[in-house]
Amino acid sequence: MIKSILGKVDFIESLRGKKATYMLAMSNTKTAEIEGITQAGIPGKIYLTPTLDSEFLCCGEVRSLEDIAKTPKGVPTPALITRAVHLLKPFSNIELLDLGIEVKPKLDYFKIHDMQIKPSNSIAENAKIDALAIFQKGLVFGQAYELKDDYLILAESVPSGTTTATATALALGYKCKELFSSSFKDVPNSIRDQTIDKALENISKEDDLFAVLSKVSDNMLIFYAGVILGLNNKTKVILAGGTQLACVLLIINAMLKTMQGEFNTSNLALCTTKWVYEDKNSDIKALLEMLSFKVNAYYADFDFSLSSHPALKLYDNGEAKEGVGAGAALTYALLNGIDKLSITKKIENLLG
Amino acid sequence: MIKSILGKVDFIESLRGKKATYMLAMSNTKTAEIEGITQAGIPGKIYLTPTLDSEFLCCGEVRSLEDIAKTPKGVPTPALITRAVHLLKPFSNIELLDLGIEVKPKLDYFKIHDMQIKPSNSIAENAKIDALAIFQKGLVFGQAYELKDDYLILAESVPSGTTTATATALALGYKCKELFSSSFKDVPNSIRDQTIDKALENISKEDDLFAVLSKVSDNMLIFYAGVILGLNNKTKVILAGGTQLACVLLIINAMLKTMQGEFNTSNLALCTTKWVYEDKNSDIKALLEMLSFKVNAYYADFDFSLSSHPALKLYDNGEAKEGVGAGAALTYALLNGIDKLSITKKIENLLG
Repeated sequence: MIKSILGKVDFIESLRGKKATYMLAMSNTKTAEIEGITQAGIPGKIYLTPTLDSEFLCCGEVRSLEDIAKTPKGVPTPALITRAVHLLKPFSNIELLDLGIEVKPKLDYFKIHDMQIKPSNSIAENAKIDALAIFQKGLVFGQAYELKDDYLILAESVPSGTTTATATALALGYKCKELFSSSFKDVPNSIRDQTIDKALENISKEDDLFAVLSKVSDNMLIFYAGVILGLNNKTKVILAGGTQLACVLLIINAMLKTMQGEFNTSNLALCTTKWVYEDKNSDIKALLEMLSFKVNAYYADFDFSLSSHPALKLYDNGEAKEGVGAGAALTYALLNGIDKLSITKKIENLLG
Repeated sequence: MIKSILGKVDFIESLRGKKATYMLAMSNTKTAEIEGITQAGIPGKIYLTPTLDSEFLCCGEVRSLEDIAKTPKGVPTPALITRAVHLLKPFSNIELLDLGIEVKPKLDYFKIHDMQIKPSNSIAENAKIDALAIFQKGLVFGQAYELKDDYLILAESVPSGTTTATATALALGYKCKELFSSSFKDVPNSIRDQTIDKALENISKEDDLFAVLSKVSDNMLIFYAGVILGLNNKTKVILAGGTQLACVLLIINAMLKTMQGEFNTSNLALCTTKWVYEDKNSDIKALLEMLSFKVNAYYADFDFSLSSHPALKLYDNGEAKEGVGAGAALTYALLNGIDKLSITKKIENLLG
């Protein structure tokens, strides 16, 4: 079942049986190196997470490290979910976006768009992103992009991305501190809050939108804002993620206010997991309702109730929620006749 | 699971979810009429095997004989496997190559490329193939071929094809007598060896490459060598077979040595069955390692361990191994989310 967060189910139902290109944006921000800020990866090697995620998604094995990324609590990366879906009902195309990663994935044959962007600094200091340049790269990419399939899934792997997304939304003036998700169950609010506070302290009243983004956001957020505006509703797009992808929309919303622009969202939807939707520490729906435009949003009604694997149960306990487009991948599976049990078994199978 | 024999899994993983054209080369060599030399068909009617294989693959019934080709031991043709896959996850296109068969398949609507080639003689006497003409036909075919899908599967049905392939590789100077497969478990080495010895006796020192091929090979081997060189890496190609398709590469390798040519193999891979890969009487990997160029090679990790059908168990016992692109068909199924149990059941279903 695919359930609505906002809007009718028609958009997502119209994609039933259709072909999808899955795009994974990978980027690193040094924010992730702040001890204890993220659960998305191996301590000391958090920066490898997007690299490992892309390797595992494409080829079913991690190459830039001995074993697949797990959190210290043993939560397996959501890349497992997306890979399982790709095994059961392959995406027609997988493409990777290198938006500034420390280590390139060791992959042949797969399309990797190298956008010539560097990993960003920690937002606790100043991310020092050339936000305008990255936005323009995204815009041009979106304008030029030729979709080979019926719709485009935009996913991400950005460790500590929920922290940069929260900081970004707050810096842009949204009253939303309590609405944002984290990869943790018991969100380490002190570290996270301190980081966000430091990020916000760097903002001055004279900073325009791009100056703000330069200091407190991450490459993915800015690039995807550009891509979505560049695509300009010409293709059907699924924003594959939770609060991070919602933040991309908040950025677009802020841009439109500045530019008094029009924005047609009829071909756009956000898709996430049930874990994000039901998360008590965040509110994806409230975030999307802050937008001055309407957007369809859905979640895949999938959990690990059919599994007894302790590592997977951690998802149901709220220890991990989203990433690598897991929610959209589950939606894609459900849209293509793959049932919950098959998905569960395939994921268990991958875990060994 | 798809496993690597040579090279990384990236090539084959990049084909996950992609569309394939399946091409079946059919040819007869009178070598197959030598009593006891092949298991691929009905004694006295071995020449019908490619005809029946193509009928069964395309339409699910044999038309040029009352019943589907079985060996005297009751091993069903691997066309069953390919047909089962085509039922579960159809190839986007099936095309047939008539490279010299005694009886044309009774098929309407299916594309049959009639290459105006005659069945070849027995290599024990002299195959009397116009090797240069057939090679050139293959070359032109490859150059002109317009693939409608994402990749091309080149399969074969050539009774006694492993004998002609062995003779060809030996005649070309490869030290590989023990590396070649056969459709038998207990390979009838005396008949086979005698035939190969007779074939090699016909070779004289003055014979150039094409003169050698004319005497000891078969139409498929020569034609496919031309096709692959003609395609010139412009499309992704899977060589669907075991030692016979490896021999096609050995021929190309010999040609390149003569012509000092370059050969880009980045879009080329061989795919075979687990039965070929694990065969103790042959060594597909060693054969491919004789090439002066690198080529990716894989096998489908599929066997009949989930079946209790005695006719299918003969495969697991090594009585049959490959043919009609069975290994590539299984790979194609696995690349498209079809699992081992579904394939097994569908094959059992076809057997009745």
